[in-house]
Amino acid sequence: MRVLGVDPGLTRCGVGVVEGVAGRPLTMAGVGVIRTPAEAEVPERLVLIERGLEEWLEEHRPEAVAVERVFSQHNVRTVMGTAQASAVAMLCAARRGLPVALHTPSEVKAAVTGSGRAGKDQVGAMVTRVLRLAAPPRPADAADALALAVCHIWRAPAHNRLQQAVAAQQSASAHRTQRRKGTLR
Amino acid sequence: MRVLGVDPGLTRCGVGVVEGVAGRPLTMAGVGVIRTPAEAEVPERLVLIERGLEEWLEEHRPEAVAVERVFSQHNVRTVMGTAQASAVAMLCAARRGLPVALHTPSEVKAAVTGSGRAGKDQVGAMVTRVLRLAAPPRPADAADALALAVCHIWRAPAHNRLQQAVAAQQSASAHRTQRRKGTLR
Repeated sequence: MRVLGVDPGLTRCGVGVVEGVAGRPLTMAGVGVIRTPAEAEVPERLVLIERGLEEWLEEHRPEAVAVERVFSQHNVRTVMGTAQASAVAMLCAARRGLPVALHTPSEVKAAVTGSGRAGKDQVGAMVTRVLRLAAPPRPADAADALALAVCHIWRAPAHNRLQQAVAAQQSASAHRTQRRKGTLR
Repeated sequence: MRVLGVDPGLTRCGVGVVEGVAGRPLTMAGVGVIRTPAEAEVPERLVLIERGLEEWLEEHRPEAVAVERVFSQHNVRTVMGTAQASAVAMLCAARRGLPVALHTPSEVKAAVTGSGRAGKDQVGAMVTRVLRLAAPPRPADAADALALAVCHIWRAPAHNRLQQAVAAQQSASAHRTQRRKGTLR
């Protein structure tokens, strides 16, 4: 499984590609940051982010995209830019028919470090160890994007088991309904 | 001047095209609403909004796009969807090289009704009168999109005068600097 993680932001949008499956060693296929000039207008910055993400999607052909879920409770001044950049990330992925998963910052921290309240350094250190890198990726946005991708791969089995359980439940109850109606004997 | 106004929203995204110049009667070239199903995932909804906006841009070929400026102070539950939809609108316009203007709800209300605190009905009534329509456009999102386009056309002369004044000021001060440095005699 190859996952593109996106840590959305107007000034720095972190991107990281991780390959592997839960329970086996993961590898990093690429990491970087899409930057846009602070003095540019927002519409122009969104175009630059779209262009950057398209290049990453084109080059790495991920099977899924994991984007950080934005909360409006955060810093009011920066949250709009983050929401706008994340909209572009979701749009680029969905337009290609790729599944998009949103993970909250605490879900990512908990998945990668074991604690939902871990600091930036801890996340960077764990990403470095899990992906067997020489040094923590810089800036933090790049490390966060990798952490998102790792989180997505590690959470996938649990998520799939949950989906299977729900599907089994629904199919069983549909089965019972049909039997009751006499359509199935 | 032909302007596409966009009242962004995930469930209903209002769109309206107005043609004309300030000081002359304006005409409506089109009005509508791009709807996306509430049960769909956000990434899919953003793709539908992009597709809808592209159709409007393709058909009406506006020279400018006016989008409602989203504030994060508003209702926390809906503001994220609005921010995401407005990001798609800005992206679609800027990708075509069209100028994008953001107007706040009070700027639009003030421009169209004379009061920044006017109600939905007042805005609808003024849009109907200004564009000489048979009845107020429904739903309110469609009327708001037309109001945004009207506001943009009416504010343009003042905005242009301001820009010209700033440009003249800058060029005069650049002129003085050059003279002082002896590059211009």
